[in-house]
This record gives sequence, structure tokens and C-alpha cells, in this order.
Amino acid sequence: MTGSEEGAFRFDDVGFARPDVGREARQGLAEVIYGPGKQTVHIVELVRHALEHNEGPVLVTRVDSEVAADVTAEIGGRYVPEARLLAWRPAETTDFTVAIVSAGTADAPVAREAEAVASALGLATVFIPDVGVAGIHRVLAETDRLRAADAVICVAGMEGALASVVGGLVGAPVIAVPTSVGYGASLEGVTALLAMMASCAAGMVVVNIDSGFGAAVAAFRIARAARKDHR
Amino acid sequence: MTGSEEGAFRFDDVGFARPDVGREARQGLAEVIYGPGKQTVHIVELVRHALEHNEGPVLVTRVDSEVAADVTAEIGGRYVPEARLLAWRPAETTDFTVAIVSAGTADAPVAREAEAVASALGLATVFIPDVGVAGIHRVLAETDRLRAADAVICVAGMEGALASVVGGLVGAPVIAVPTSVGYGASLEGVTALLAMMASCAAGMVVVNIDSGFGAAVAAFRIARAARKDHR
Amino acid sequence: MTGSEEGAFRFDDVGFARPDVGREARQGLAEVIYGPGKQTVHIVELVRHALEHNEGPVLVTRVDSEVAADVTAEIGGRYVPEARLLAWRPAETTDFTVAIVSAGTADAPVAREAEAVASALGLATVFIPDVGVAGIHRVLAETDRLRAADAVICVAGMEGALASVVGGLVGAPVIAVPTSVGYGASLEGVTALLAMMASCAAGMVVVNIDSGFGAAVAAFRIARAARKDHR
Amino acid sequence: MTGSEEGAFRFDDVGFARPDVGREARQGLAEVIYGPGKQTVHIVELVRHALEHNEGPVLVTRVDSEVAADVTAEIGGRYVPEARLLAWRPAETTDFTVAIVSAGTADAPVAREAEAVASALGLATVFIPDVGVAGIHRVLAETDRLRAADAVICVAGMEGALASVVGGLVGAPVIAVPTSVGYGASLEGVTALLAMMASCAAGMVVVNIDSGFGAAVAAFRIARAARKDHR
Amino acid sequence: MTGSEEGAFRFDDVGFARPDVGREARQGLAEVIYGPGKQTVHIVELVRHALEHNEGPVLVTRVDSEVAADVTAEIGGRYVPEARLLAWRPAETTDFTVAIVSAGTADAPVAREAEAVASALGLATVFIPDVGVAGIHRVLAETDRLRAADAVICVAGMEGALASVVGGLVGAPVIAVPTSVGYGASLEGVTALLAMMASCAAGMVVVNIDSGFGAAVAAFRIARAARKDHR
Amino acid sequence: MTGSEEGAFRFDDVGFARPDVGREARQGLAEVIYGPGKQTVHIVELVRHALEHNEGPVLVTRVDSEVAADVTAEIGGRYVPEARLLAWRPAETTDFTVAIVSAGTADAPVAREAEAVASALGLATVFIPDVGVAGIHRVLAETDRLRAADAVICVAGMEGALASVVGGLVGAPVIAVPTSVGYGASLEGVTALLAMMASCAAGMVVVNIDSGFGAAVAAFRIARAARKDHR
Amino acid sequence: MTGSEEGAFRFDDVGFARPDVGREARQGLAEVIYGPGKQTVHIVELVRHALEHNEGPVLVTRVDSEVAADVTAEIGGRYVPEARLLAWRPAETTDFTVAIVSAGTADAPVAREAEAVASALGLATVFIPDVGVAGIHRVLAETDRLRAADAVICVAGMEGALASVVGGLVGAPVIAVPTSVGYGASLEGVTALLAMMASCAAGMVVVNIDSGFGAAVAAFRIARAARKDHR
Amino acid sequence: MTGSEEGAFRFDDVGFARPDVGREARQGLAEVIYGPGKQTVHIVELVRHALEHNEGPVLVTRVDSEVAADVTAEIGGRYVPEARLLAWRPAETTDFTVAIVSAGTADAPVAREAEAVASALGLATVFIPDVGVAGIHRVLAETDRLRAADAVICVAGMEGALASVVGGLVGAPVIAVPTSVGYGASLEGVTALLAMMASCAAGMVVVNIDSGFGAAVAAFRIARAARKDHR
Repeated sequence: MTGSEEGAFRFDDVGFARPDVGREARQGLAEVIYGPGKQTVHIVELVRHALEHNEGPVLVTRVDSEVAADVTAEIGGRYVPEARLLAWRPAETTDFTVAIVSAGTADAPVAREAEAVASALGLATVFIPDVGVAGIHRVLAETDRLRAADAVICVAGMEGALASVVGGLVGAPVIAVPTSVGYGASLEGVTALLAMMASCAAGMVVVNIDSGFGAAVAAFRIARAARKDHR
Repeated sequence: MTGSEEGAFRFDDVGFARPDVGREARQGLAEVIYGPGKQTVHIVELVRHALEHNEGPVLVTRVDSEVAADVTAEIGGRYVPEARLLAWRPAETTDFTVAIVSAGTADAPVAREAEAVASALGLATVFIPDVGVAGIHRVLAETDRLRAADAVICVAGMEGALASVVGGLVGAPVIAVPTSVGYGASLEGVTALLAMMASCAAGMVVVNIDSGFGAAVAAFRIARAARKDHR
Repeated sequence: MTGSEEGAFRFDDVGFARPDVGREARQGLAEVIYGPGKQTVHIVELVRHALEHNEGPVLVTRVDSEVAADVTAEIGGRYVPEARLLAWRPAETTDFTVAIVSAGTADAPVAREAEAVASALGLATVFIPDVGVAGIHRVLAETDRLRAADAVICVAGMEGALASVVGGLVGAPVIAVPTSVGYGASLEGVTALLAMMASCAAGMVVVNIDSGFGAAVAAFRIARAARKDHR
Repeated sequence: MTGSEEGAFRFDDVGFARPDVGREARQGLAEVIYGPGKQTVHIVELVRHALEHNEGPVLVTRVDSEVAADVTAEIGGRYVPEARLLAWRPAETTDFTVAIVSAGTADAPVAREAEAVASALGLATVFIPDVGVAGIHRVLAETDRLRAADAVICVAGMEGALASVVGGLVGAPVIAVPTSVGYGASLEGVTALLAMMASCAAGMVVVNIDSGFGAAVAAFRIARAARKDHR
Repeated sequence: MTGSEEGAFRFDDVGFARPDVGREARQGLAEVIYGPGKQTVHIVELVRHALEHNEGPVLVTRVDSEVAADVTAEIGGRYVPEARLLAWRPAETTDFTVAIVSAGTADAPVAREAEAVASALGLATVFIPDVGVAGIHRVLAETDRLRAADAVICVAGMEGALASVVGGLVGAPVIAVPTSVGYGASLEGVTALLAMMASCAAGMVVVNIDSGFGAAVAAFRIARAARKDHR
Repeated sequence: MTGSEEGAFRFDDVGFARPDVGREARQGLAEVIYGPGKQTVHIVELVRHALEHNEGPVLVTRVDSEVAADVTAEIGGRYVPEARLLAWRPAETTDFTVAIVSAGTADAPVAREAEAVASALGLATVFIPDVGVAGIHRVLAETDRLRAADAVICVAGMEGALASVVGGLVGAPVIAVPTSVGYGASLEGVTALLAMMASCAAGMVVVNIDSGFGAAVAAFRIARAARKDHR
Repeated sequence: MTGSEEGAFRFDDVGFARPDVGREARQGLAEVIYGPGKQTVHIVELVRHALEHNEGPVLVTRVDSEVAADVTAEIGGRYVPEARLLAWRPAETTDFTVAIVSAGTADAPVAREAEAVASALGLATVFIPDVGVAGIHRVLAETDRLRAADAVICVAGMEGALASVVGGLVGAPVIAVPTSVGYGASLEGVTALLAMMASCAAGMVVVNIDSGFGAAVAAFRIARAARKDHR
Repeated sequence: MTGSEEGAFRFDDVGFARPDVGREARQGLAEVIYGPGKQTVHIVELVRHALEHNEGPVLVTRVDSEVAADVTAEIGGRYVPEARLLAWRPAETTDFTVAIVSAGTADAPVAREAEAVASALGLATVFIPDVGVAGIHRVLAETDRLRAADAVICVAGMEGALASVVGGLVGAPVIAVPTSVGYGASLEGVTALLAMMASCAAGMVVVNIDSGFGAAVAAFRIARAARKDHR
């Protein structure tokens, strides 16, 4: 840890939590606040702290509309209800484009979270819903848009087969998000998770079940790598 | 159980086993002999008994080439090595066509078992190997042959995604066979099994892991249903 | 994809969804609408769209009675409460007969869904409930009706043993449906699913837990195969 | 622990083991020696010790034929190869009859272990192999013999459905033994274990996978309960 | 099936169900009615039917107090609230004694169901609660009562260790009942189930999670075997 | 699929396989040949075909040294024994740098596969082995090298904790590879897989167990995204 | 059991339970009362009994605030709401210090239970929350306090990686507590449990999911061992 | 990290590994070398390095006798074959006593590893084998020796019940080691692991399956805590 990076390894102690205020310096993104189980007063305090000690976007995930209303009444911010996301100081949109493709209408909340987080972090997004493989021509019709993207987030529940198809169509990074959509043998998303892991499409990567958020941050990391000058 | 069906519920006692000699009358196919764990002498005795008390095909599954050589030296029969199948009195080929489509070259033994059993039971077969979804255009190029088939057996390991794609392409019955091909998250075929079960393609059905045999008999049952006069 | 099939690979974009309007051409059945998680207004819009762009039956599955009342108030349709099914333009009944046999009274909702969907798709149905193997004479007494059927759907929870018994009684295709009925070691239907997969009855096939719908569509696919002229 | 039972709670220390020499007094059966992983010299020493400090049968389970030859060369005893059992001082046969019924020929080693242990413990046995439910008439033909038995041990792998059928046929105690026979979804016997646990046949009980030994001892416990004078 | 047993294989068809009215003849106990998911009117009808077509006890299990009040208002019967059991025509108590031993106070509902069902079926019962192995002297203090019993039902959740201890203390049949008591690694009773299955106490048998009912019927089967004259 | 991309959707049929010769056009990398289960003659034929129909690197994975010797005797190529990789026409090294960090010495084969594949695909690599978290200062000492990398591949078995630590140290994409190293509760890599999926480090992605290959291709996809001009 | 220890093996029978009143003599801590599922009247009775028959601390765990209010209204006691703990007669604080370190704010309830129980048992505590490994510098900043502790309790959900890091930092006993915090692949705490078990940090030990209580008692056992005079 | 502790955070780089030479300073024990998968030459090099850079005991675990012979021929050392342990410079025995109690003779290798590692680390050991709970009087007879120990390591496979019994007998720390002994439902040690985790004995802790080594190091950590002066 060289001295010049000192800021990357700071943290504060606010009693009930230790905000990692070096994270923006280390990773280009302030510590994101996970909403569930937190009291509104704590969310407000953490957001205030984050706004003060960071310069870029501040996010709270998985917030329902009532809590969101209470929080925004206190400290403003924008709420994206279909993504259950609260955001402050969204980044300016860059030319790094992420296509978010999803298998069924029931996968929408997860796909929308991926889209909203990616947008707030400055990625350009293309949203392609309801192209599950039972009607394979739907995703094939999107081949050009998918191949034009710099990265693809593929959201699917049940057996998660869409990810393998998309992984084979494009050369860009493909981030698969298993969802808990389905019943019986879909085992609350575990089947899709395992299937995506075992996929025959080489070089596809996977994040946690229902984690549209995780996929968007993975895309953000890739965009950072791309922003350097490589050839 | 009406009197005329009496023959359908007979069985013999040969000491170490009770051959279900009514099965051919009940189901159109003599009891198939499962090879593993049986002494060659017992296989020979069961085949002899089956040939004598039935009229149609007699099969032994999962037989390696050495045992097969010993058995055929005693009582003839045809051995299909890539399917590990021994067969006597194969049925005449009918016009009921089963397409057997498989995802990768490693799935070949299971696909070949399905093909060899289906052939022995009188089904016409079309064999379409190595069309996994990582190169989706390969299976799409076979759309016409798949749609022309009366039934489709789809063999796939790893994440098993091919089954969902095929299930959405054709209106015929699709019998999915998960295979134990793959490593890690493929869990020896359990992942493909669960994924096929949870598939978004409506009306697809699944048999046990690596059971090319089971899939072929399922197709045979369907062919029997089709042989009646329906409109 | 030959030109004459162009219609088989169409789809529409209605914003929140991409109805696969080629599915009826491809598979003989319009895309079925899965009810859970959808707003009533979306169900109505999808049904309207389906009625307009298809010619045959239109179905919505897993709809509770209140939603059903709202939907039918808007666009008519028939609701089968014990199957939680909404149907429009049911097909004319053909002579392809499916026997639906179930193990216990608690399996009734799944069995009724299978029956209602099969009926709506034009299959003749025979309903044989509560013949679980703990009183094996009950299912044996139905041997004649089971053997007369062109296909059998077997619905069972707990250990799912009925499927193996029925699979051995008849030569017709047997589609096993595990249900989530039971407690403890039945693991919400996973035990029945695995047991049906591992069944000793050759050529039996399995669909997802509680999927009476999937079993009925599988039977419909078989009936389509049977409608061709085979001998 | 009253004084008169003192003998029931003795044990010896032979260095590498602590034989529970009170077990015969407590349970009517000397501690049975589990063969795998033991050196022949230790087996011989434990058998000698058991013969000296007990009065009834002494058993060693899961012994292969080579070890058995070495042991019997030293201290006699009878070896039952198909059950892999070594026995000394078998009990006189009583009138308590156990029917041992098994589903397939591959279940034979487990069924034979149950039979050999039961015989050595003085139970009369009836052996009914290869009556799996895919040909249900085979087990039904044995209804009288099954119903005449004082207890039934039911051995089955794959989906284990035979146990539920037998459990419903007879009023006697039914001890189900899942076996590791099968592949894929049979999960090395776990599926049969769960299925037997979840069985719809009331009052059936289950022992460990492949434990013919456990089932026989369970029957022995029941026979002891029956030897008292109840009405 | 000899003619004299004809009555053992009868059943009725009451529309929504097929009461197995031969079961009392086959097994000495009328088909027990499983309460959950049944409408009160159906429970009443099934109880009436059972009372009419059988001679001995009639039971409904897992009934909450409100349903029980409605049912008994219609057709009488006795309700045991801590066991959630409804009973009619309980059998006279015999001299076959079942000790019901449980590990913790939270296991009481399962233990009480075992006791109430056993009592209704004419077994004498001894109830020994809260003797878990963390204070091993509690169960040891009951050694005499346990060893005096003709059979023992052992009810335990968490790790289920009590069953192994009791299985080693007595020579009588021991029926282990895993319960869903516990959290985390107890996996809703699956851990106790597996542990009881894998027990080092030879000849112990296991029933489904939380099935005090199943254990009591198992004991009843043993009592029937004991009622014959063996020596 | 626009005409200009026609080459991206070609494939050949060589009898036993259908090489996806459009893959290099689609994804920048020819179809990689999976070695296990293939005959040497087939490997040679597939490599020849790949060399002829593609322009860039050709790889065969998981090849042991004997097969490698036979193959290279026929058609040359370079074998990397510690990675079990065969490579032809490796790409020129670019300035996109991947750090490959591994937890223990036993993880070396997987880490070496990642390194060898990445190198063959033209990525610059930095290899940092044996920095497991039980001595956390070892990985911290590499902070500068890790943070200088464009992407990080993190290889770890047992509990896989290293991935979370690295995921929090750097802002670049982190690709976690669970390995099957460990025993007992590590469940052949499943525990590490689940742990990496559930990681608290936002935006980390995961590939299949032991798939150094998959991780390297994922890095290659990212490098492709980075080669475009983004800011 | 020597005579002088007689008191260590006493218990009482209060009807619904058998308080193990010898436990304080055996283990230095009276039997702790598990709150869930108990009626308030029973909790009061058990506490009264425990206060009377023991000398040291009496605890009730997992009590919500309403029940706590009812109980304390009857018999006093101190309620720690964030730990859901009721305590009477807490022990005097000794110089044995336990550091309680937790990964995230959502782990607080489990960590607080560990702290409150440890305090009530006389251990000195240091509380270090929210130092998860995604910002590894937070826990490193606590190295001195961690290394000064006599034992460390490490509470973490999701992938549980913090435990391995702490296990490598200190030489004192480390007790890992997996929590059910997280979603998807965290499997309600099972992933953290397995990961902690499979940890590369030698000599770390693990307790049940969410069992802050269990960890504190483990620390108490260690403190007892430490109170003897060793060198 | 204060300067005085600098030595605690050193490591070396020997090419194929990074020995954590600060570990002895941090934890009182040099990094232990895990034998499996390492070449003999590497083991020798790591041992030499460890002997040079540390002052206390150096251990290699899980070494078979042939490798051990090769290693000791090069650099001396003592091999304990039944524990598969190589040791150099064992610590002087202290007065901290660990009782190692095991359930069955098949658990001996794990118990012996625990004993040998504990001895090498300077702990006094008491070895109590073969006291499984099926003969509960065997472990009760050891109550005094168990209660005299400063810590107890309890080794058990199958259902692991011994751990709960021992956990309730003594007040000292109890470290439970599940073993892979058993078959069927014991699931290679996973059942014992879960059962020990779910144990009703408060404050028991668990290590990985078959990890006698882990248990001994846990005891060593406790002994270190005890060596400080607490009261």
C-alpha cells in the first residue's frame, strides 16, 4: 500500500456501522447501501455520510416505496420503483453500452435493477425483455443489438438457458443473472445458477441469484477496464 | 383385468429372477434385461427365456464388449458397441420417425443408445449430433429435419439448454435426456435434469440421467399411441 | 427455416412483453399466459392480443378466482376454479383420450389442471382420482380404463409410487407429475420428482412439480404425433 | 439401573476396542462385528472374545470371501458368501416368520444379508425376490405368503415403490430397506430412502441404505416383543 | 388373493374420494383421514362413511381446534387438542405397552400425536418427555420403564441423538421420529432424519419427520404381530 | 443477422462433430477443443480442421502428457504440462494485463490453466500464487500489482475467501474460480462456488469449479471490450 | 460418577419439563431456557425453578419484547432487546476477554446475542461490528484489539470470509458463527456454515447458524479451562 | 499493526510457495504443511525452510508411509503411521490435558491424528476409543477422566451422537470432529457434521470432517488462552 493510495484505505466509525470511505478511491464507486433490515433513520444517516465523503453516485438497493418516500422526504434523491433503487448524483452517461436481456416478464424486477444501477453508474443501457428460448427467434432478432453492446447482462430464471444462447452469440463479456422465477425443480433460482455455471458457452460469468445489482457493478468494473487505453 | 388379457399378467420363476413374460402382451415389448452386475451365464439364461416366451425384440442394455462377445458366442445376437446394446429379433422399421439430437460429442454414447434401442424397436431414426447452443445456428440449420420428425429425443449434459431450444422449435413430443457430461456445477447430470424439468418450453418431458434407453422406450410408447387411428 | 414457415417465427412487441405469435403455427397452440405476478390489465391485454393473432385456444394458468372475475368481466372467457384456469375458444374434442389418474385427494388441484388444459386443447379425458398404492386394488380395478387410454397422466405426491405401478400396467405413454403434497421427507415434491425419474418402469416420462399444465401439453404434443397417419 | 441388571452394562477393554459385553443381556444379541476396515487378526480376536463372553450367535458383517477364509481357518464359523456374513452359534429357528421381498435381481446382496442375519438370529424366513412394481402382478401373486408373515422386510432401490405397495397389502410390520441400486436420479439410494420415508402407506418404517443387517435386527427386536405373551 | 379375503380388497367411490374400505380387514385399522386441505364437509362425510363401513377406531389427524369443533358438532367424536387428533370408537386398551420418550419440550406436539394415536388403537402408553442427551442422566433414570415397554417411540429434533442412546439401552423395537424442531443446521428435521438413519444402534427404525402418527401405527403393527402366539 | 456477418454463423460437419467455424468471427476465438473422452485421432482431425478454417489461436484443454505427445508428433503445437494445454498459433501479447492470484499450492493446476490460456489468447499475465487469507499479509503485499492489472482472476478452493478480499481491494473486474481443493465440508468445490456467489464484494463474477479455462476466456472477452475506444 | 459429584446428575420433574438441575454443578451454568414456542406461564415457572435450584446466572434466549415485558412484570430480570435475551443474576465480570467481531450491520442481532450472553456469564467483551472483508482494512485496523483478546467470536453471513481472515490473524481460539444474512446462493446460512468448516485457517471452530448464544457458551467453556492454573 | 509485531507479518517466496514465516510469531505454531498432492522434493524443501525460520514444532499432515520414508531419509523427523503425521522438534508436554474420545474403532485414524498433533504441540493427551452411544455405559464409565480434562476432542462418524452426550457431561470446551465413517445416510460425514452443528449441547464447537488436525490445533489455541493468568 503505497502512500499515494492512502485515501483508498480509510473508513469511518458511525457507531452502528463503519462506512468504507476509501472504496470510491479504490473502486470508483462509493460503498452501496443495502436497504433491507435497516431503519429509515440509519439509511438517511448513511446516505448523508456517503454524500459528504464521496464525490460520485450514492445508491441504496432493495428499498420499498414507503421507505423510499420517507428517505427522499428527508434528503431528496431519485427513486426507481420497478428497480427498488434510490440514487443520488448519478454519473454522466458514457459511451460504454450494456445490453440487458431477460427471458420472461417475471424476470423484469431483476432486469430493471440491473438497468437502473448501470444507468446510475454512467453506463449506456439497452433493454431487451421477454426473449426466452422457447421462442428462440425473439432473441435471434436482437442479434445485432446484442453484438453491438460492450457487455451483456443476461437475466433468466427457470432453467436459465437464455444465458448459454447469448453467451454463444456475442464476443463481448456476458454476465448471467439467475433469478428465482419458476417453481418446483427451479429450486428458487439454484437450478438456474448451477446451469449457468455449467454452461457450454465459454467465458460466461455468473453472479448471485436475483442480483441485478451485482451484474451492473460487474459491468461497471469492465467499463473501467475499458476506459484505459488498450490496443 | 378381463379374461382376454390373461396373458398380460403372467410371469415365470427361474430361481434367481421372475421374468415378466406378460410384459410383451401388456406393453408391446418384452422385459428388457439390464446388464450391469449380472453374470454372463444369467444374461444368457434370461435371453434364452425371453426369446422363447416372447415374439418380438429382446434387448440387453449397458453391456461391455467382452461380456457381449461371450454372450453372442453362446446365442448369437447383434452387438452395437457405441450403444453398449445387445439385440435379438429387431422389429421391422416403421414410418414413425424419431430425431435424436445431441449437444456435444461427449453425449454420443447416450445418444447412440437412444438410437440403437429405437431402431431395434422399429422406429425410424434421424441422428443429429453436436449442435449445442453455444453455436445456436447449428441446431437452427436442422429446423426442418427436427420439425419433420414424429418425436424428438434431445440429449444434453452440462446445463442442458438445448432441450429448451428444441422444445420451442417443434410441436412434436420432445423427450429430454440429461447426461452426466460436464464437471463442477453440472453435478453429474443433476443440474441438467433439474434444468430440463424447470424448462420454459411447455410440454417437454424428461427421463433419467444418461438414460438413452428410457427415452427410446418413451418414443416407442408414443409410436404405439400413434399407430391407432386418430383424427 | 424455409419460406413457407415464415409465420412460425414471428413475434410482436407490446412493450412489457413479446408475444410469440408464431407459436401456434410452430406447435399448434398459442403461447399460454402464466398468471402469477401479472397485473390484471396485462393479462387482459395479452389475452386480447392472443385472441386476435391466433385462431385456436387461448389459456391463462394459475389464476385465482378474484383475478378471474375481473378478467372475464372485461373479455369473457371460461374459468375452471378447481384448475385455476381461464380459457377462450376451447378446441373441439377429438378421439384421443387421456386418462388422468391421481394418488390422493390432496393431488386434486394438479390433476384438475391437467384435465382442464387437456380438455381445452381438444383431448378427451377420463378422470380417476384417489387410487394411491397404499390400497393397490383401487388402481388395479381401473386397469381396463387405463389400458384403453391413448396416454396416461399420473399425478402423485409423497413418494410418487403410483407412477411406477401405472407405468408397468399400460403400454401407452405415461406422463408422471410429481406434486408438492406431503411433508418432511417429501421435500416439497423433490422426492417424488427424483423417484419418478428413477422409476423401474421403462419409458415413463416426467414433468415439473405440480405442473398439471405441462403434462397436458405433453399429451397434446403426443396427440398431434398420433394424428398423422402411421402404421 | 437396578442391581439385577448389572450384567447388562458391562464392557471390556481389549486395547483397540471396548466390546460391549452387556449387550446380549440388554438386547438379546451380542455386539455384531462390522467387518470393513478391520485387520483379520482383530476380527479373530473380537470373535474369540465374543464367543467367550456371550452365549448366543456371534456375527461379522460385510466380510469378503478372502478374509472369511482366513478367519474361518483360525476359528471355524460359517460363511454365507452372497450375504458376506460370518456366523457362529446360530440360534434355533423359531416360529416367527419374516418375509424378505425384493424389487430386482440387483437388490439380491442386500436381501440375502437380511435373510442370513435373520436366520442366524433364529427367525424363520421366506425369500421372495424380483417382484418389482413394473410388473405388479408378481408381488400380488405373493399376497398370501406376505400376509402370512409375522413381519416383512422390503428391499428396493431406484424409486423404492415396492415398499409402499407391500406396506398397503399387509397388516404386519413392514421394514423398508432402500438400496443403492440404480443410477442418475436414484442418487446412490438417497431417493429410495426419502421416498420410503414419505410413503403413503401408514406405519411403514425405514432403515439405512443397503442395510439388510439393520432390517434383520429390527425384525429380531419385533420377534422379541412378540415372544412375550400379549393379547 | 383367496376368496376368503375378498373383503380385504374392497373400496367405495364417493365422488371426491375412494375410501379403501378393505383396509380394516387387511390391516386391522380403517383408513385414517388426513385433515389438512380438506373441507369440513368432506371430513364429516368421510368420517360418516368410515364409521358405517368399519367396526373399529376412526381417526382424523392434524385437525386444528376450529375445524374439530365444527366436525364434532356434526357427528360427535373426541378431540385431543395437543395432538390435533379427532377419534371415534377408540379401541380397548390392551397389555401391549409403548413408551413414548421425547428429547425436548418443543417435541411435545409430535410426541402427543404418537401417544393419542397409540391410545386410540388400544396400546397402553407411557409418556416420558424432556430427556434429551445434553443431560443424559434424565433418560438413564428411565431405563427401567423403557426396558419394560414392548416397544419404544423416540421423538427428537435437532441432531436426534436421543434415538441412538435409547436404541442401545433396550432390546425392544425402537421407532425413531425426527422432528422439525431446531434451526440452522437442523434443516427442518432432515438432519435428525439422516442421523437416525445412520445411527450406530443396530435395528432401530425411522419414520417421516414429525410423524407421530406414523410411529404409532408402526407400533400398532408390531402389537398385532405380538398378539399371535409365538415362542 | 445482417449479410455482412454471414461468416459468423457457419459450421462444418465432419461426421463425428460439427465444428462451429463461425465462432472466430463471432467471438474472436476459434472453438476450443475439450480433450477428455476424445480419441487422439479425433483431436488431431479437429485441430487440423480448426487450423485450416480459422486464423488465430487453436487450443485443446485438459490433455494429459501422453496424448499431448501423440498429438504434437502428428501436427506440432506447444504443450504446457502444468496447465494440461495444447496450443497452436498463440496470439501476440497485448498490453491488457491479467493478474492470476491463487490461494494455495494445491490450486496451481487451475491457476496455471488460466495463465496458459490467457497467454495463448494474447493477454499479458502476472502470476501470484499461494497468498491464501490465513496469512492475509501475503495478498496485501501484492496490492500494487493487483491494482495495476486490467482484470484479476482469483483461484481458490476450500472456503474461497480470497476472492472476497481481492474483490474488495481492486476496482478492476474480478473473475473468481472455485476449485475442488479441500475435503469434507468443501464438497468438491461446491462450497467455494456458493461462497463466491454469495460474496459481500460487489460486482465479483464466478465461473465453474476448476475452470481456469473459463476464467481466461472471460478475461479475453473483457479485453476485447477494452480494445474499443471508450472514454 | 463418584459420590462427590452426585449433585451434577440431578434433575427435577415439573410435569411439562425436566429441568436438569445438575447442570450448573457439571458445567458451571444453569440450563438455559429456549424461549420460542413456550407459553409465558411456562417461561415464568422455569425461570422461578432455575433461580431457586441454581446459584448463578439464569437466561432465556430468543424472547421478543412483548413476552419479555410479561415475564419481567412477574419476576423481574433484565431484558436486552437487541439480543432478545432475558437475564437474572448476571455473573461478575472476569478478566477473560472475548472480542466479538462481525462482518455487516445485518449480522448485528447475532453478534449482540453473543455479547449479551457472554457478559451475563462474566466474560469481558469487546464489540467490533461491520468490518467485512470487502473493505479488509477495517478488520486489519483492529488487529491489536483482536490479538489482545483471550478468545474471538466471529459473526458473518453471506460467504463468511471474515472468519478465515480473523482465524489467520490471531492465535487465540476463534469461534465462527455463520448467519442467515444474505440471499440466493447464501442458502439461509448453509453456505457460510460450510465455508467456515472448510476454512484454510487451522484450528478455527464453528457453531450453528445464527447461534450467538452457542458461541458465547463456547467462549465461557474456554474461560473455565483458562481459569485453572496452567503453564 | 504496531512495529513490535513486525515479525508476525513476514513471509518468504520460494517460487512454488510463499511460506508464512510470521505465523509462529502470530499464532505460536509454524505453518503446518499439508502433504497430499505435494512432491517429496517440495515437502523436503518446505520442511527445511520451516525448520530454519521457526523455532518450535514443524508438522506435515496426511503423509503415507512411503513418502514419509523418503522424507525422513533426507531430513530425519518422526513419523506416526496411524496418524499419518511427520513431526520435527515436538514441544515439551505441558499440563494442559486434552481427552480424545472416539465412537468406534473405524474412527481411529482421525482420533490418532488429533492425538499425535496435540502431543507434538505440547498438550498432554488421554485417549479413550470405542465408546459409542449404542453402549452408553462405556462413555459414562469415563466420566471422571473426561471431566478432569481441560478440553475434550470428540471424534464420531455415522450420526455423531457421542458429541452431544459428551457435550452435556463436561463443562470444558468440547471440539467435535465428524468423520466420514458410515455408509448410506451418513453421506460421507455430512450427516455427522450437521448433527453436531445442530446439537442440543450448548457451547459445543465443530471442525471439518475427518479433521483430527483441526481439532488438535483448536485445542492448542485454547491451551494458549489458558496459559495466560486468568481468574
